[in-house]
Amino acid sequence: MALRGHLIKIARTRALTGGQPSRAQSVAVLGAPFSQGQKRRGVEHGPKVIRDAGLIERLSGLDYAVHDFGDLTFHYPEMDEPYMNVKFPRTVGAATKKLSGAVSRAVGAGHTLVMLGGDHSLGIGSVAGHAQQCPDLCVIWVDAHADVNTPETSPSGNLHGQPVAFMLKELRDKVRRSQVRNVEDDSSTAVPSQLYLFVHVPTQVPDLPGFSWVKPFLSCRDLVYIGLRDVDPGEYHILKNLGIQYFTMRDIDRLGIQRVTEVALDHVLARKQRPIHLSFDIDAFDPSLAPATGTPVNGGLTYREGIYITEEVHNTGLLSVMDMVEVNPVVGSTRAAVEATASLAVDVIASSLGQTREGAHGVIDEIPSTKDHVDTEQLCL
Amino acid sequence: MALRGHLIKIARTRALTGGQPSRAQSVAVLGAPFSQGQKRRGVEHGPKVIRDAGLIERLSGLDYAVHDFGDLTFHYPEMDEPYMNVKFPRTVGAATKKLSGAVSRAVGAGHTLVMLGGDHSLGIGSVAGHAQQCPDLCVIWVDAHADVNTPETSPSGNLHGQPVAFMLKELRDKVRRSQVRNVEDDSSTAVPSQLYLFVHVPTQVPDLPGFSWVKPFLSCRDLVYIGLRDVDPGEYHILKNLGIQYFTMRDIDRLGIQRVTEVALDHVLARKQRPIHLSFDIDAFDPSLAPATGTPVNGGLTYREGIYITEEVHNTGLLSVMDMVEVNPVVGSTRAAVEATASLAVDVIASSLGQTREGAHGVIDEIPSTKDHVDTEQLCL
Amino acid sequence: MALRGHLIKIARTRALTGGQPSRAQSVAVLGAPFSQGQKRRGVEHGPKVIRDAGLIERLSGLDYAVHDFGDLTFHYPEMDEPYMNVKFPRTVGAATKKLSGAVSRAVGAGHTLVMLGGDHSLGIGSVAGHAQQCPDLCVIWVDAHADVNTPETSPSGNLHGQPVAFMLKELRDKVRRSQVRNVEDDSSTAVPSQLYLFVHVPTQVPDLPGFSWVKPFLSCRDLVYIGLRDVDPGEYHILKNLGIQYFTMRDIDRLGIQRVTEVALDHVLARKQRPIHLSFDIDAFDPSLAPATGTPVNGGLTYREGIYITEEVHNTGLLSVMDMVEVNPVVGSTRAAVEATASLAVDVIASSLGQTREGAHGVIDEIPSTKDHVDTEQLCL
Repeated sequence: MALRGHLIKIARTRALTGGQPSRAQSVAVLGAPFSQGQKRRGVEHGPKVIRDAGLIERLSGLDYAVHDFGDLTFHYPEMDEPYMNVKFPRTVGAATKKLSGAVSRAVGAGHTLVMLGGDHSLGIGSVAGHAQQCPDLCVIWVDAHADVNTPETSPSGNLHGQPVAFMLKELRDKVRRSQVRNVEDDSSTAVPSQLYLFVHVPTQVPDLPGFSWVKPFLSCRDLVYIGLRDVDPGEYHILKNLGIQYFTMRDIDRLGIQRVTEVALDHVLARKQRPIHLSFDIDAFDPSLAPATGTPVNGGLTYREGIYITEEVHNTGLLSVMDMVEVNPVVGSTRAAVEATASLAVDVIASSLGQTREGAHGVIDEIPSTKDHVDTEQLCL
Repeated sequence: MALRGHLIKIARTRALTGGQPSRAQSVAVLGAPFSQGQKRRGVEHGPKVIRDAGLIERLSGLDYAVHDFGDLTFHYPEMDEPYMNVKFPRTVGAATKKLSGAVSRAVGAGHTLVMLGGDHSLGIGSVAGHAQQCPDLCVIWVDAHADVNTPETSPSGNLHGQPVAFMLKELRDKVRRSQVRNVEDDSSTAVPSQLYLFVHVPTQVPDLPGFSWVKPFLSCRDLVYIGLRDVDPGEYHILKNLGIQYFTMRDIDRLGIQRVTEVALDHVLARKQRPIHLSFDIDAFDPSLAPATGTPVNGGLTYREGIYITEEVHNTGLLSVMDMVEVNPVVGSTRAAVEATASLAVDVIASSLGQTREGAHGVIDEIPSTKDHVDTEQLCL
Repeated sequence: MALRGHLIKIARTRALTGGQPSRAQSVAVLGAPFSQGQKRRGVEHGPKVIRDAGLIERLSGLDYAVHDFGDLTFHYPEMDEPYMNVKFPRTVGAATKKLSGAVSRAVGAGHTLVMLGGDHSLGIGSVAGHAQQCPDLCVIWVDAHADVNTPETSPSGNLHGQPVAFMLKELRDKVRRSQVRNVEDDSSTAVPSQLYLFVHVPTQVPDLPGFSWVKPFLSCRDLVYIGLRDVDPGEYHILKNLGIQYFTMRDIDRLGIQRVTEVALDHVLARKQRPIHLSFDIDAFDPSLAPATGTPVNGGLTYREGIYITEEVHNTGLLSVMDMVEVNPVVGSTRAAVEATASLAVDVIASSLGQTREGAHGVIDEIPSTKDHVDTEQLCL
């Protein structure tokens, strides 16, 4: 009860100080130098370049007690033949399992955790480990890609395009097809309000070697995407058929970042205040800002839009774990490009953890709302 | 009637599949390597660099039957003295006449046509040829410039700044001056709701050598501009006095791209569904995105704004012909600058023809509206 | 009275022509090559590079009678030891005093004045001189920084981060603390609508050597900031405790530039039409647009946002003096970077003085409102 009381006090203090950390609050940083979820080497150096860009100093400057847990060491099986189309299943399975344990321990110890990838296949381990401590968590996935291919729909076979599929309960359940109607057979004149063209895309995730440790744990309604602009056919099918909430760049163009962020947060928090897992792929940003990444797509987030999203996540007072993935220093054409990308990653992390553009420093400028009073520790245990 | 029935079926299928092309739908690509409408050499290589950036493959990937008609060959008169201030009148007149015929034939054969310039003087031929088949067309002109100088108002004498003037019926008619009052003579205290300072800008297009083939065919109300930010005095006079609808970059700053695009499309489509001619000058984009062009102007469209406009044009289901002009590989300072500009042109064309950021692939996600059921073929004949 | 009648006529003509200058209107340009308000050398070359980018020609093209008063010459005391933490107090004090006199004379002679810095410590002299002629002026401060540190709160001791503190009457008065409550003592359950955590930040500006000439002259309510994104702790305290109106980049992300500019102008003009002092620090822009400046901060204004602000300032018809400061050609890494920054400065000045993106040229397109009929000369005298 001593620890519990202590943490409640921290949460309250944070609420009263407008989202600013008290000195006692603790942030842990964990590196996961792993790249077998995709084919480009280099992304395993992400943790190093993000730290070199000043991450630890920046977080310390925000008055956190920062614990740098260093980098995980991964073991690589000697043989790892593809399974179906999927590359390195045993390697990725083992790495994400290890990460899962480390994340679970850090969260259990009371830290707010920052996981530095590595590629986005790590998301399987990071979210799963987080969910062990906080089964009621929600996930905000900021990314150019939906990363929800199944082993059968994946065009590339790379697991960094599939992590969300391993989390979703609905992809293991039998897909409900009550709403699905074949357009060819539709002879009614009244068009139903929701009409999907059913095509036989496999929507169940098969048992991959290396992945027996992970059981789906996330409901579709506890997930929201921001930033999508390159969605594969199978992914589009899954997003639509499961009714997953997502905001593409087109949605941001239409609605503005303020409205998109508001609706996205409402989607996962309106029913219940709960711990947030923010999984941030640096390729959500426009390639002009984040050139050092493996699968850039034009027309991404501006600097200000990315910072706005993370400011709002911080303002909920509910951020529990965040991933910063896909910074790849080998891809950047110049040293300046790599440094800009790494520096951007640091800005995003700092903003998620309370750095403001207004310069708030232990001063209250808003009435603390009920939302801010939530005790995240209580939610997790 | 067989053809007609076939095309109606295509239009319906397209409507049912949410704007995605059926396999039977045909896109034709026509190059117009022409640069005498302005003074910088190099823009005649536009068709080549746009094709080299992967245009045909991209359109094929959208499930179109793509017909590349190659490049037109233009003949150059030995002598082409300026007429008044206008440079190369006979050369531009002959080239646009030839283009006009080619566009007319392609549209008549049932293709959706993509015309690759070349400079924007080609717009005279492209829109005129389109209008021969579809006299009821409307024009969406996306450009940093209004291109509506007359031979007498043009500061430079270059015909790429004048194509719209040759189309407008109202510039051949006597200018109605009922609303025009001289400010100096205005001694009333009540200021009228619309007050123009009348100056004697010539507003009739004279008969240029080489242009006897073209008779004005477009009404001002069937034209809308998006992206203007460098408008000459005579052009401003014409825009205002003829009541032409236009949206400057300032309007986009004020209203947002969503609202501007909505109002622009309503302006030309609300009275009647009709075929769209989209004339897209790459200099509508900011020079940081499209450096390889002859008359760049700061403060242009972002990548996302340009893509948003073309997505919305596609969503009408009414695009019939589009021009992509003023990509000039000789102007770009580096190879990367040229490739970025050409790649942007490909993205804009693909987006106009159905490439989405959401990844829709033969799946319906909206109730097809009445608008989508329009049979464009019927409108043209 | 002859002069007065003449100026009233100018103001009316300007109003009738939609904000465009009449030929009789006069703009003066004054260079202030000064850099001792901060530590980076090079910003004293700002006036030269801005002129080299074509400022005078551009303003002449707007039909102003342009008077280039050249550059001020500053005298440097042999000894200028820091006072407290403040560097070069006597040097900055003498330079700003000299500038103050020059600005006062130019405004008194009926010119609209453009002051070219130099660093932003010059703002003390520019606004003070303006206020001598127009005590009722308001200030629009466009900047990444609030520049409102006092000598005691300043982390760096550089006076270019402190000019606003020397202007504000409220920083010399005893700080009103009626609203201030200590959070630790707050045991009430009802949270008051405004609650500040009081910390003993010194909020009075001490008497610095060199600054005896300047007495605070500006009320907090006559000041508004746009573009803030790097605010020091002491500054945040001052902004909040004095209730100064400011708009950070986050506010622009939330509200859009149209709304922010509207509310900012309303804040200073709604109670009373009055002369505007626009103090524009080039670092308000994003570093990608204005790299040649000493203290760049990511996530700044876009080109279009900056131009929108200045268009709106011009449209009030009330701009009386503007500063363009912190262009530093020594900081830019390339010649192109320096030229881009200087060219941007010219665009901002031209837009503040009536250059439009719509191309209005002596033509009225709006009903002149009452606001436009204000006689600025009358306000100043």
